[in-house]
Amino acid sequence: MTSLNELGAAALVARLARGEITAERLARDCLARVELREPALRAFARIEPERVLEAARALDRGGARGPLYGLPLGVKDIIDTFDLPTEYGSPIYAGHRPAADAACVALARGAGALVFGKTASTEFATHPPGPTTNPHNPAHTPGGSSSGSAAAVADRMLPLALGTQTGGSVIRPAAFCGVVGYKPSFGLLPRTGVKAISDSFDTVGVFARAVEDAALAVAALTGREALRIPASLNAPRLGVCRTPQWPAALPETRKLFDELPGRLVRAGARVEALELPAAFAPLAELHGTIWDYEIARCLADEYRRHGGRLREPLRSQLERGRTVSGEAYDAARRAAREGRRMLEDVLNGFDALVVPAAPGEAPEGLASTGDSVFNRVWTLLHAPCVNVPAGRGPSGLPLGIQVVGRIGDDARVLACAHWIELS
Amino acid sequence: MTSLNELGAAALVARLARGEITAERLARDCLARVELREPALRAFARIEPERVLEAARALDRGGARGPLYGLPLGVKDIIDTFDLPTEYGSPIYAGHRPAADAACVALARGAGALVFGKTASTEFATHPPGPTTNPHNPAHTPGGSSSGSAAAVADRMLPLALGTQTGGSVIRPAAFCGVVGYKPSFGLLPRTGVKAISDSFDTVGVFARAVEDAALAVAALTGREALRIPASLNAPRLGVCRTPQWPAALPETRKLFDELPGRLVRAGARVEALELPAAFAPLAELHGTIWDYEIARCLADEYRRHGGRLREPLRSQLERGRTVSGEAYDAARRAAREGRRMLEDVLNGFDALVVPAAPGEAPEGLASTGDSVFNRVWTLLHAPCVNVPAGRGPSGLPLGIQVVGRIGDDARVLACAHWIELS
Repeated sequence: MTSLNELGAAALVARLARGEITAERLARDCLARVELREPALRAFARIEPERVLEAARALDRGGARGPLYGLPLGVKDIIDTFDLPTEYGSPIYAGHRPAADAACVALARGAGALVFGKTASTEFATHPPGPTTNPHNPAHTPGGSSSGSAAAVADRMLPLALGTQTGGSVIRPAAFCGVVGYKPSFGLLPRTGVKAISDSFDTVGVFARAVEDAALAVAALTGREALRIPASLNAPRLGVCRTPQWPAALPETRKLFDELPGRLVRAGARVEALELPAAFAPLAELHGTIWDYEIARCLADEYRRHGGRLREPLRSQLERGRTVSGEAYDAARRAAREGRRMLEDVLNGFDALVVPAAPGEAPEGLASTGDSVFNRVWTLLHAPCVNVPAGRGPSGLPLGIQVVGRIGDDARVLACAHWIELS
Repeated sequence: MTSLNELGAAALVARLARGEITAERLARDCLARVELREPALRAFARIEPERVLEAARALDRGGARGPLYGLPLGVKDIIDTFDLPTEYGSPIYAGHRPAADAACVALARGAGALVFGKTASTEFATHPPGPTTNPHNPAHTPGGSSSGSAAAVADRMLPLALGTQTGGSVIRPAAFCGVVGYKPSFGLLPRTGVKAISDSFDTVGVFARAVEDAALAVAALTGREALRIPASLNAPRLGVCRTPQWPAALPETRKLFDELPGRLVRAGARVEALELPAAFAPLAELHGTIWDYEIARCLADEYRRHGGRLREPLRSQLERGRTVSGEAYDAARRAAREGRRMLEDVLNGFDALVVPAAPGEAPEGLASTGDSVFNRVWTLLHAPCVNVPAGRGPSGLPLGIQVVGRIGDDARVLACAHWIELS
């Protein structure tokens, strides 16, 4: 008999709804996997097994069963939970107990999900890494900042986890860990109760084993049934785009993108190579201008009262952000708005773009979570992005490709990602 | 000798900086006024006089003196403070102690301001009123939701207070209490640590006795020196606009707007009557669609775990918000974005618009904080707005006019408001 922790969210939701399995049995299987693997993986900031089982039994006894009934959900520790400590990856918040659930957690509980534990984050979802290792090789980073969410889902501890992305914090760890990561259009999931590090960019996203699982989860959280993957799909019109960041691509990504168009065409897609207009080139740097300015405001209290407890390079980023002028910030935001309009034109005639998700495999070492160079521009543009696992690199670690679409056109992007996943 | 609580922020900052007065003496004068008037006004959710004096003495002893050194600041109780309870106007949060200062409070403390107390808010900055009365007549509402901030500044308890606006929660109480209220362009002041009720609209603003005081405060909080009122100003080009909401204007506002163009022209302004294009008419209703949808998400935890402790009409609003479809919400947001672009065209050839701030005087009774009908569209449009006191109505209560400008063009709007204030 398969351990239930091996199954994806869609398969589990169906079995739970039909009463073939209980939330408690599923939770036990997930907990068994956690017990086995957590010492190496360090994916959790907090997990309380007795509380998990108690909550599972309460769900099994409960009457009304929501669309995520019984589904174990990891919650990145940058997201508030009223019943579990939330430490934002920082010693400043050791033992911190928020008064309320974040909105996304409240919606998940309202849909019947089982909050399983808090997953490890980098410090305030920025650069200083957490303790988590890559499930495919513990000497490598899992990526970040949603390190624990990506690793726990990839390692089959959990079918589903919440993360956040401000630079590349959903797509990059998904690529490095070999799972689906879905960063919705900016604002699709509410971010109330998520520790803010950028008002312009902070976006709640999800990790799952397959695109349909991620789509199902966000459909349930938002009540947007149109996000679910339809039963039949037309072959998509895809623009394969190396982006102005291409010089950062490692050999494994170059090889992947050499082979990708042929693979997609053979599967039936209409594929064109696409170059972004020159006006996109400065956006990566402007992401930094906006983020530096905003994070210096968002963490103004932490810097003022606890500055000595902030690790590098976060502390330097806050100091840099205090020197960005209002004029430079305003100009960067204007350029970002203009970029969002240009994205409409770029996508004219395409269902989605296919771009690199990361430079290559997860780098060795835990001192850095890797480079978000292929993610920052899409975050700035507020575009929906999905990481689709795409084979292995020279060290046997996962590679991913990133599917990107129009702002607000998440259903189409998910459908394309699902099509590519199966192709 | 004048009691120092009678002076405005600019005059106080100058005297404090020159060492002519101490922060402690100023704090004592403000506390004396609070002692005298608070029983009737009920402007504060929390004030701890001993702590205020201790903080004032610490500032007087301190070395580096910021641009707001020693200035007593009221903080709306929807805004987190690490050292004072923050109850969001709701019994759900009785005694709640946030772990951190909101960003705007941390910036204010960093600039040397003295956090004086928490000012009363309506429930979660929505409709159910707080206890505050109008300083000009305790039988009338002070307006809301930033009721305590407006009343405390108007009553000369404080020179400066922070508020927030999602519908009309800065401009309306400023008009009803006869003070300057400044709602900056969306995003100018950071909102981290402000209890969220609408990701699209929540905006931090300030109350002060004069436009130059409000400008000085926001210049200090943002480091944007350009916001300060310049020493000399050209007469502005103003569009006087009755707006599609004009049927809600009461006789005193009709009279005010009959006389206003002549008054402005005599003072030297170039004035034209202006009608908004028909496309602006639906925006007021779309504000409701977006807000209902978003507040139902923002307060999802409070609704799920404490629904019975939410007062009407808030509870009904949350239920209504759960029924707004994703499609209706998306369409409303698209129209709002389009409206922001149209506002650019409307302002072509003008420095600012002059529009009603409220239907008329503050209504009698404390069961409602009045109607935000003349504010919601400008909040949706993200435009900077300033309430300028403009005489009295038939009951002897204050009237205001609202100066509105281009998104991000706050310096010009403040300069126009200052010019109008003096005209």
